[in-house]
Amino acid sequence: MAVPEVYLAPGDALIEVEFATVCGSDLHTVHGRRSAPTPLVLGHEQVGKVVAVGEGARRAGGQALAIGDRVIWSIMVSCGDCDRCLKGVPQKCRQLAKYGHEQVRHGWELSGGFATHVHLRSGTTIVPVASSMPREIAAPLSCASATAIGAIDAAASVMNLDGATMLVTGAGLVGLTVAAAATDRGARVIVSDPDPSRRANALRFGAIETVDPMSPAGLPDSFEAVQTRLGLQDGLDVSIEASGSSAAVAQAIDCLDIGGVAVLVGSVHPAGRVQLDPEAVVRGLKTVRGVHNYAPKHLIDAVAYLEERHCAYPFAELVGTSYPLSELDEAIAEATTGGHVRVGIIP
Amino acid sequence: MAVPEVYLAPGDALIEVEFATVCGSDLHTVHGRRSAPTPLVLGHEQVGKVVAVGEGARRAGGQALAIGDRVIWSIMVSCGDCDRCLKGVPQKCRQLAKYGHEQVRHGWELSGGFATHVHLRSGTTIVPVASSMPREIAAPLSCASATAIGAIDAAASVMNLDGATMLVTGAGLVGLTVAAAATDRGARVIVSDPDPSRRANALRFGAIETVDPMSPAGLPDSFEAVQTRLGLQDGLDVSIEASGSSAAVAQAIDCLDIGGVAVLVGSVHPAGRVQLDPEAVVRGLKTVRGVHNYAPKHLIDAVAYLEERHCAYPFAELVGTSYPLSELDEAIAEATTGGHVRVGIIP
Repeated sequence: MAVPEVYLAPGDALIEVEFATVCGSDLHTVHGRRSAPTPLVLGHEQVGKVVAVGEGARRAGGQALAIGDRVIWSIMVSCGDCDRCLKGVPQKCRQLAKYGHEQVRHGWELSGGFATHVHLRSGTTIVPVASSMPREIAAPLSCASATAIGAIDAAASVMNLDGATMLVTGAGLVGLTVAAAATDRGARVIVSDPDPSRRANALRFGAIETVDPMSPAGLPDSFEAVQTRLGLQDGLDVSIEASGSSAAVAQAIDCLDIGGVAVLVGSVHPAGRVQLDPEAVVRGLKTVRGVHNYAPKHLIDAVAYLEERHCAYPFAELVGTSYPLSELDEAIAEATTGGHVRVGIIP
Repeated sequence: MAVPEVYLAPGDALIEVEFATVCGSDLHTVHGRRSAPTPLVLGHEQVGKVVAVGEGARRAGGQALAIGDRVIWSIMVSCGDCDRCLKGVPQKCRQLAKYGHEQVRHGWELSGGFATHVHLRSGTTIVPVASSMPREIAAPLSCASATAIGAIDAAASVMNLDGATMLVTGAGLVGLTVAAAATDRGARVIVSDPDPSRRANALRFGAIETVDPMSPAGLPDSFEAVQTRLGLQDGLDVSIEASGSSAAVAQAIDCLDIGGVAVLVGSVHPAGRVQLDPEAVVRGLKTVRGVHNYAPKHLIDAVAYLEERHCAYPFAELVGTSYPLSELDEAIAEATTGGHVRVGIIP
């Protein structure tokens, strides 16, 4: 064993972490906007190399996992047998465990990505990534990227995205990945974010226009002005809300054209209620869907998407700075400033 | 021509009305809960016989329409060519006209079902109904029944209904049709309605339990007690809201289990806003969908469903009383009492 005292059960694997990134939800936890059991090892976006395998450990798809494989893995460990797993929501498994979210306990001490090693448990979806994929792109796959692909899938199951108009609220990593992947599926994407540098970023990820949600309707960067410029006064076909702001949730629903679909993905901490007008939902044939985490398919699809398209957009630049693991507190502080889409951690 | 001064354009047809029913939305219009242009001929649930055809008039499916055909028809006339028709929402056609909703105008005087004759215009979905189908069942097909089938379709596109648990709020004709058709698709249906006679009715339309939404949680007919009896404390898979009450809309969303879907169909007049908790929608992977009217497919499916299953449930009894057309005001007054699911009109 590479790490003393770690026992690998059948299907488990031990990973040596190559690189991790700080997710917005890590910051929610650190800053107490949501509760978490302690002590815990934080971190759930990371890439690493297999250094030991339990009996019969497998990649997604079924091939044997081999020592030396470069892999990413699902945020969750699911049993595969309970009613929720069977219903297609393994992220809500009755036996759910999540990397970077669990209290340290005997037998599963290495459960988070801000560490030198992670102990993967049977029931984790493990996906190999090519050595050519930059670590800055590989690490967030298991959270932001897979969630973005899941959100697009939730919209696409209601609405053909080819030719659709889409509003994305929040130009963090989920929003930018949605913008790029939806653009690649033929959507015309508008990105809304109050931060000018994030708006500028969005234009490099496929957005055809950006909106400042704080801008009064008369100004050219307001949503109304952009709608008029693009001839979309009837509303948009799709919105994907990736900011968690209640005002953005309201806009994501209100902005829809007849038959449109809003996918909510950012609201992962308590926030203000949103006033829903039932008549507008009914007469508008609107659909509102919540997406939290993802199913294994979305992780696999996210890896395939980014292996093919990561060179088309500046994903690698989104990790603005990196810190050694020994300076984790400084890394968290830097991430908290909001000056970078992601901050990296190097063990 | 059977009616002087009616000119049938190509694709049009003239119908002699056999029987009509008073829909809840007719009452909304009469009582000013929603505005309508006047003068208008009210009524959009009816069955009748073709007495004259314009050149090339066709049934849904393409066969020629023949004099003597017993038919029902869509509530709407759609162009088939605009962006909305092409997007699959012909009920929101850019050139939309609706039977029983339009100001009387020269060339389309006979636009409502509370009349001896109706002038069907090209762009209407016309569906034959068997002579064996009671007129009380045939008349509401074009509104309540097709809407119910559309609502079920909106749920089924997100969730397999076989084995699903479902809450139906509102035991009017839409709710009862949903209960029956969802039961026939394998769902376990709970119906909620404040009216005891409507709840009793629901048990004859497939409901396995009924709920009084006004009942405090401790009482046996409260939603909480029924949930406990059925072991559904995690929530339900599907809800279909057919009452238009904002409290019911809130419950339809709140009652969902992880991954559940709420279909809103009753909110066709202004009502109070509903407080939506974005985090609950996201973490619960909930879907909320509005359904208004229906696409031609749902009308065709509704006819097929009721031709096959109308004997399995007491649909024909839902028309509690009927009035001659000359006593339309009395019929409307009787319908307003709420004592009958439907009141009939006989020309």
